[in-house]
Amino acid sequence: MAALDPILNDIDTDLDNALERLFEFLRIESISTDSAYKGECRKAAHWLEGNLTALGFETSVEETSLHPVVYAHKPKPGAPHVLFYGHYDVQPVDPLNLWTHPPFEPRLIGEGDRRQIVARGASDDKGQVMTFVEACRAHLAMNGELPCAVTIVIEGAEESGSQGLPEWVEKNRDRLEADVALVCDTSMWDRNTPQITTSLRGLAYFEVTVTCADRDLHSGFFGGAAANPIHVLSKILAALHDDQGRVTIPDFYEGVREPPAEVLEQWKGLDFTAEKFLGPIGLKEPAGERGRMLIELIQSRPACDVNGIIGGYTAEGTKTVIAGQASAKVSFRLVDDQDPEQLAKNFEAFVRERAPADCKVDVVCYKGSRAIALPYDMPQLSVAQAALTEEWGRDAIAVGAGGSIPIVGDFKRLLGLDTLLIGFGLDDDRIHSPNEKYELKSFHKGTRSWARILSALAAR
Amino acid sequence: MAALDPILNDIDTDLDNALERLFEFLRIESISTDSAYKGECRKAAHWLEGNLTALGFETSVEETSLHPVVYAHKPKPGAPHVLFYGHYDVQPVDPLNLWTHPPFEPRLIGEGDRRQIVARGASDDKGQVMTFVEACRAHLAMNGELPCAVTIVIEGAEESGSQGLPEWVEKNRDRLEADVALVCDTSMWDRNTPQITTSLRGLAYFEVTVTCADRDLHSGFFGGAAANPIHVLSKILAALHDDQGRVTIPDFYEGVREPPAEVLEQWKGLDFTAEKFLGPIGLKEPAGERGRMLIELIQSRPACDVNGIIGGYTAEGTKTVIAGQASAKVSFRLVDDQDPEQLAKNFEAFVRERAPADCKVDVVCYKGSRAIALPYDMPQLSVAQAALTEEWGRDAIAVGAGGSIPIVGDFKRLLGLDTLLIGFGLDDDRIHSPNEKYELKSFHKGTRSWARILSALAAR
Repeated sequence: MAALDPILNDIDTDLDNALERLFEFLRIESISTDSAYKGECRKAAHWLEGNLTALGFETSVEETSLHPVVYAHKPKPGAPHVLFYGHYDVQPVDPLNLWTHPPFEPRLIGEGDRRQIVARGASDDKGQVMTFVEACRAHLAMNGELPCAVTIVIEGAEESGSQGLPEWVEKNRDRLEADVALVCDTSMWDRNTPQITTSLRGLAYFEVTVTCADRDLHSGFFGGAAANPIHVLSKILAALHDDQGRVTIPDFYEGVREPPAEVLEQWKGLDFTAEKFLGPIGLKEPAGERGRMLIELIQSRPACDVNGIIGGYTAEGTKTVIAGQASAKVSFRLVDDQDPEQLAKNFEAFVRERAPADCKVDVVCYKGSRAIALPYDMPQLSVAQAALTEEWGRDAIAVGAGGSIPIVGDFKRLLGLDTLLIGFGLDDDRIHSPNEKYELKSFHKGTRSWARILSALAAR
Repeated sequence: MAALDPILNDIDTDLDNALERLFEFLRIESISTDSAYKGECRKAAHWLEGNLTALGFETSVEETSLHPVVYAHKPKPGAPHVLFYGHYDVQPVDPLNLWTHPPFEPRLIGEGDRRQIVARGASDDKGQVMTFVEACRAHLAMNGELPCAVTIVIEGAEESGSQGLPEWVEKNRDRLEADVALVCDTSMWDRNTPQITTSLRGLAYFEVTVTCADRDLHSGFFGGAAANPIHVLSKILAALHDDQGRVTIPDFYEGVREPPAEVLEQWKGLDFTAEKFLGPIGLKEPAGERGRMLIELIQSRPACDVNGIIGGYTAEGTKTVIAGQASAKVSFRLVDDQDPEQLAKNFEAFVRERAPADCKVDVVCYKGSRAIALPYDMPQLSVAQAALTEEWGRDAIAVGAGGSIPIVGDFKRLLGLDTLLIGFGLDDDRIHSPNEKYELKSFHKGTRSWARILSALAAR
């Protein structure tokens, strides 16, 4: 068993070079949801291929139905085998005018303990991916080998619902055998407390388009006589929640369970207040279901959010128009046994019921995922917790999270693998928003954490 | 009194040249609501200045608080005096992808009786303005003088609520004295039946912006806990109408009168069906207030339309975001004595009442106008009706219209002038929409109509 200190020391002394490598990665505009950036996604895949090949991984860029997957492998007979997953694609950057500098020109901003890497993808997920890659680099630099056999899968369509990935995983089962999956795409409990995420909400995502007249109309001539698709859409969206904040779609809460009493008791003991969680984003009161603790709202309860809406004239000034068409994107966070396919049927029926005879309604259903939860008695969980606790000097906590990482369910279903979700993001990282950042401390101590975890899993 | 036939004949033989002049005018991208087109608005004003000066008008381009006004005058002592009003500004062109050719590259499309001039502004209002200018040109070409004294005012901010115009009119009262105002910015009853519009609905236009969090949020982390401004806005907009299609803002119907029984009787006699009015735009059933005739809905009843809405992610694909902000443009068509200022207060209160404590709501109030109606016994009305009937071979009808032309109220209030609204547009001209058109027949016979009306008003 190789000594850990030289490896951690190498991570400390090589930090500037590691940052330079991350910045190169962040400069690639790999937005997966916008087809204009297809070439940039491929470029990011090949950048990773070059980087991992240089470390001695056997690496290839492999096609899927959307953007390619990067596959890398370094065997170690007799040692435990980990499968690491991350994604190189990033969210769109709009609204661009709210960025303090261009999103694909990464900068190191601030001083001391709070230095931040600011760029699209800094936290979600390029910075997080590189903590694992850099940990491998340090092990290899000091010892010429890794403590475990390592397979790495970095996809390019996570922000597009991982389109094409499950099919690729299914086809490549033999090459993805491992003892445990590792994912670095989640957050810490707070800036000093590491966290292993043991459950994730599922996701169902829809786009609703309402069409009335076959063109835009003058509201002077037609106002009061012609159907207005924004009115129709507003009525539909307004009907999604009742006045208690509950989702009104029939059978929506089917499969939702109440957490065991002892879990609720633990949650009550956490100092998880609206002031702490919502204060930093300028809000005071939890929205959503009345009569629930805030931590329930984001962990054990499902939620529905309209993610976008557009119709009619939206530029400066006035235009007296009745739009021909309006559309909205609507998504649901799912928990426990809620079924995204059943929801798709119920949602579509809910929408169609509310459309007047004269309106045409289209509902597009993007890929959905069920919620997932780890077994609490999983052996690697306590090993990883101990390694994290050693690095951060605070007990690593195991807790659920509000977001969705669809591949985790696919790994279980297709490969029989449980996944340790260990990330170093912070809740104020502004992922999916302007001025996304990843703290230098997250990047540095995140890399050190993975170096420890790899050793710890090998020693088990 | 000059003979009319040579003048009408000159209009017929000069049609190609007249079209060439109109096309020059249409090529100018004079969108008044978008400040990026400020220079183009000025260019349109100077184009008119050049054209009217060449006809012998004393012409000037005069500043207002937004875009300049073109003022032209040709005196004729002892003759009746008309004040003609039109506008050189046009609506924005979005959605651009629905145009069959570039909106500022006018084309003549189709054959025979249905030939169309297709371009932004072809009907609203450049083509209509030029029918009057070309009628003046023909009179001057044949007789060296006009039958009436003529003052022309062409503004550049009609599509921006005529911002700056009332102040300019007030300052220039002395130079705007006349016996009657003429406006060419309305439609025919149908493609063969001329119309004088004797009433217009007023307008009140608002923009509502709802702000919740101070940034866009990840819906995975915050969904179910953070307020969503699209939800708040949808609830507000959905509440604007009850299930009978009536506007729910308190006191909204204050000042609305029922038309006299004999008018309602006349309306019942008109063959104004949903099939005829809504069929051409792909609709079947009147929206809006239940239990009203379609003609009531667009003439004697007020209406409320959401003209635009935007918030969150609206591009291709999915983004799991909770927007920080969402906004909508909402306008009202007013009738009879409805007061736009009182409505502004009531609307703002209505919106604020529905905003949760955590949300900030901004309401911008654009310029409003009251509804207006002509005296039925106005002497010039029957003279103009007779001239139109002669040109078109069908009785010209006097009727109200759904749209708003704010300046008409200002002319009455500031100058004591009644206005004859005579236009040659058709309901399917797609004004404010892609592929706006003005029929060649409207342009040609519209010019002939004005030549007749000018002579008739002088002979009175």
